[in-house]
Amino acid sequence: MEKLSEEAINKNLENLEGWEYAKNAIHTSFQFANFKDAFTVMTRIAFEAEAQQHHPNWANVYNELEISLSTHEAGGVTEKDFKLARAIEEIVEAG
Amino acid sequence: MEKLSEEAINKNLENLEGWEYAKNAIHTSFQFANFKDAFTVMTRIAFEAEAQQHHPNWANVYNELEISLSTHEAGGVTEKDFKLARAIEEIVEAG
Repeated sequence: MEKLSEEAINKNLENLEGWEYAKNAIHTSFQFANFKDAFTVMTRIAFEAEAQQHHPNWANVYNELEISLSTHEAGGVTEKDFKLARAIEEIVEAG
Repeated sequence: MEKLSEEAINKNLENLEGWEYAKNAIHTSFQFANFKDAFTVMTRIAFEAEAQQHHPNWANVYNELEISLSTHEAGGVTEKDFKLARAIEEIVEAG
């Protein structure tokens, strides 16, 4: 899996609302009604991440969730990150 | 729920291996075999946190889990944090 160029990353980001590229990773954050709602979404994302064998770098406190995606082996952002990011968006929109 | 003194915090920490006090919170970290094991423990902690109505500030990437506990309303560490910390230790030890 090849590291994407900044141009390719920015092109991919056009189709992902609320995500930005910084420090060799793509980032977003979500705010839910409460902890239970946040963790429900995290659980769905966890199953998807495990299925994709690609895992987020994420932090949660109460109703807030911050997610960063990058591909360790590639030293940057790859198509794997965008695949997981799109799945995360679908999960959050369906939630 | 009253903010504990640094003396009381250090006394409580004596009974909690692997936790330390810094920046007005208590902190620990765990390493698991893989993501699935890490998220399994996170799920158990999530249910416990919700039951206690006291939630962690936590971050995960793959098999690593970092946890910080403090009591927002008290502006520091309270007995609530130690109650949750002890429950987390029990969950991890049982895991």
